[in-house]
Amino acid sequence: MKPRKVRGFEDVYAQDISVLSTMLECLQAHYRLYGFEPLYTPSIEYSDVLGKFLPDDDRPNDGVFSFQDDAEQWVSLRYDLTAPLARYVAENYDNLPKPFKRQQTGTVWRNEKPGPGRLREFSQCDIDIIGSTSMASDTEIIIVAARALEKLGIPSQQYRIAVNNRKLMDSLLMRLFPLQKGAELTAQKTTILRAVDKLDRLGITGVTQLLGQGRKDESGDFTKGANLNTSQIDMVLDFLTTTNTIKDRKSALKALENIAHKNALGEEAWHEFFRIDNLLSALHIPDWQVQFDTSIVRGLDYYTGPVFEAELLPQKNDTDKIVGVSGAVGGGGRYDGLVSRFSKNIIPGVGFSIGVTRLFHALKQYMEYDFSVQTPVIILALEQDFMAEYFKLADELRQDGIIADVYMGESGMRAQMKYADKRQARFVIIEGEDERKQNVVTIKDLDKGRIVSQSISDNTQWRQNQEAQVKIPKNDVLAYLSKRIKK
Amino acid sequence: MKPRKVRGFEDVYAQDISVLSTMLECLQAHYRLYGFEPLYTPSIEYSDVLGKFLPDDDRPNDGVFSFQDDAEQWVSLRYDLTAPLARYVAENYDNLPKPFKRQQTGTVWRNEKPGPGRLREFSQCDIDIIGSTSMASDTEIIIVAARALEKLGIPSQQYRIAVNNRKLMDSLLMRLFPLQKGAELTAQKTTILRAVDKLDRLGITGVTQLLGQGRKDESGDFTKGANLNTSQIDMVLDFLTTTNTIKDRKSALKALENIAHKNALGEEAWHEFFRIDNLLSALHIPDWQVQFDTSIVRGLDYYTGPVFEAELLPQKNDTDKIVGVSGAVGGGGRYDGLVSRFSKNIIPGVGFSIGVTRLFHALKQYMEYDFSVQTPVIILALEQDFMAEYFKLADELRQDGIIADVYMGESGMRAQMKYADKRQARFVIIEGEDERKQNVVTIKDLDKGRIVSQSISDNTQWRQNQEAQVKIPKNDVLAYLSKRIKK
Repeated sequence: MKPRKVRGFEDVYAQDISVLSTMLECLQAHYRLYGFEPLYTPSIEYSDVLGKFLPDDDRPNDGVFSFQDDAEQWVSLRYDLTAPLARYVAENYDNLPKPFKRQQTGTVWRNEKPGPGRLREFSQCDIDIIGSTSMASDTEIIIVAARALEKLGIPSQQYRIAVNNRKLMDSLLMRLFPLQKGAELTAQKTTILRAVDKLDRLGITGVTQLLGQGRKDESGDFTKGANLNTSQIDMVLDFLTTTNTIKDRKSALKALENIAHKNALGEEAWHEFFRIDNLLSALHIPDWQVQFDTSIVRGLDYYTGPVFEAELLPQKNDTDKIVGVSGAVGGGGRYDGLVSRFSKNIIPGVGFSIGVTRLFHALKQYMEYDFSVQTPVIILALEQDFMAEYFKLADELRQDGIIADVYMGESGMRAQMKYADKRQARFVIIEGEDERKQNVVTIKDLDKGRIVSQSISDNTQWRQNQEAQVKIPKNDVLAYLSKRIKK
Repeated sequence: MKPRKVRGFEDVYAQDISVLSTMLECLQAHYRLYGFEPLYTPSIEYSDVLGKFLPDDDRPNDGVFSFQDDAEQWVSLRYDLTAPLARYVAENYDNLPKPFKRQQTGTVWRNEKPGPGRLREFSQCDIDIIGSTSMASDTEIIIVAARALEKLGIPSQQYRIAVNNRKLMDSLLMRLFPLQKGAELTAQKTTILRAVDKLDRLGITGVTQLLGQGRKDESGDFTKGANLNTSQIDMVLDFLTTTNTIKDRKSALKALENIAHKNALGEEAWHEFFRIDNLLSALHIPDWQVQFDTSIVRGLDYYTGPVFEAELLPQKNDTDKIVGVSGAVGGGGRYDGLVSRFSKNIIPGVGFSIGVTRLFHALKQYMEYDFSVQTPVIILALEQDFMAEYFKLADELRQDGIIADVYMGESGMRAQMKYADKRQARFVIIEGEDERKQNVVTIKDLDKGRIVSQSISDNTQWRQNQEAQVKIPKNDVLAYLSKRIKK
């Protein structure tokens, strides 16, 4: 049997886990300060309860892992944390505080074709406010998201939250297709949204093809287009580029007037932008930190109002080359129909989701974290008969918060030193026959010239070859190490 | 559409999440002190890589959630954290320190028929040592498990780690079926193990039936038995009850001689018990904390040597009635064949797994944790035009670590007070027109006589009715609250 992972699934190692935990603790504490209370919902929900809101209908099984349970009901692994939240709120509506503010960190699964950087299992860290139509909610979500990135140590002006509004796009579509209604308009809208959502990846040319007859990609696969005519395509592109060169919100509001003041839906969108800017500006949230940008779409189908995207901006090095991780690390928006699926009443919602893995890889480049972790002190087990002595010594160190690890195998000195090396230990404690007679131990500092353990053949030779080692009374070990190890 | 959860899956609420996190942080830090490094493996693995080691072959789909991925490969949600670890070690063997010590906390899934207290999604918190045959490893695992329970605040002598050895049972089976070999013996062994594993639930009578012709349960379902004859059944029962009344390890070792010194496998088992006791006793691990008990089996098929079970002992109240949660909260053992499935070499392993949810429910009764969490200060939003002022005040409090929550809805005073009540807030801050004119705010202490928010109809009446409220200058709010809130 060959040991192998399923494609699109990855292991995570010790050091990354400790940085990830630090990052998540920071986010969760930040969210908590704003009154977002933690919730845990299960990984598996009934498929019809989750609904179908994922972008890209060209994925296998609509992008969701689904199967039948023992009662032959279709169930699915959640593809986000918002759809299960809608189920939770609908199920518990009467007992919840209204509005309901919750945070959740959890794994989600997407049955996509895996590729570089595209995993089928990843984590999200979400905040949501359910039950408020006020733009103050949307604004709070935007502010909390922006400050989260700041708190995690991403330098000012190297990120932004971009804000758009789905109603603005809907207003445009009403003008493009004045005669269409219902399912037909929805299908048309979906095709256009998905085309526009690819602006980042395919550029204006690619999007133009997808809005028109369609597009053949490098592999020769053809994607059917939205079949807009040239003037319709121009209207969409004009819309997308409205705020293209505008960096401040007040000028963006001005520019938006042209495309918004065409019908009631556009007016509504404009006033939502206006109210968001009003509150942001009163709170002195800088124009670089939160921007209005008509090119932002977000993939999920359930958004109905403002949509947000958290982006790391491309960084250039000395030779003007783009370096490091950039692009979206999170997104969200208002979804006034999602909880309402389960209810006769309209239950509005707005939220934001951080892509934990993406953000983590991005954070590494800013090095705001102490990536060093305490490595264990390795106590060699030279004589199996004295194992209890080694265990006792280790316990003494642990009581002081020092990570202590007695070698657990039955191999000789050489293998034990190799083990200490692989564990990246700084200190090794040796208590052999000689030491025991004198009631001392030898402490070796491996950082002072990392040893090449392969070249060492026996205990005596090894000891003679080493400089950075001391013999100290056994009773002094804790005091000696405690001073030297950062806990 | 009706909002509903899949059977056997549960939501977890804010307060339980914060206690669960505290518990897991305690366990993880404890494991880390012993040099167990964190690892994350994915939730989904190829079905054949996980293998079939779950107890109870009467479960649907062998107890595992399985489905085909887009490449039509069978994949499964992991049913434990040990089978994926075996895959990980085999895949990365050359680069790992040997022995390899890792800890992992994660969700696992079982496709069982759900019932009261039997969930299909739960968390485990595991430690394992791979690559060492030394009984020092098994002993370390036992000690770390025992001390984990102690550290979590379970009072001394209200828990124990029970230790048995699969080789002892195998030695008995060799004597019961001297002529059987291979698959036939394995099948026979599995049936007997599963019968014996039900001792806790079915008692001696039930196990006797399952060892004989079989057993009809309350619902009328018949489980086929192992078809042993009366003398064979007696041998098994004698074996199970060998250490029945024995509470110290030395006496248990003595009693075990009778059943162990019958063949080579029995001798081996006895010497493993002996070596474990040797180290435990040298380290003064009390007899109540770690006990030898031949009635312990553990369900998983992959164990090959010592097996362990962490148990909370039944507590009786004044009237001698058993109260609270008792029974197994974790278990483990040695599995020398699991990694070897992927390798020509024997790669031994030993580990222990805590059932996080079970232990959590048990811990609640010992109340060692501070179950109180900081509740938010609620800032009422009486005038939407002054939202920015409310946001600024909230930010000022948050900078001092105070959870502050501006009411996000657009309802009136009454709904806002009801909201504060549902959030279990102690303090509410009111800044209405009157207060703004005087540059003060009203702070209401809800704990001083929780208000009945339903009876309040307007702002003025509410203020007159309240005793526990103060008016203070807006600039003094932080100082006032900071003194009164435990962060």
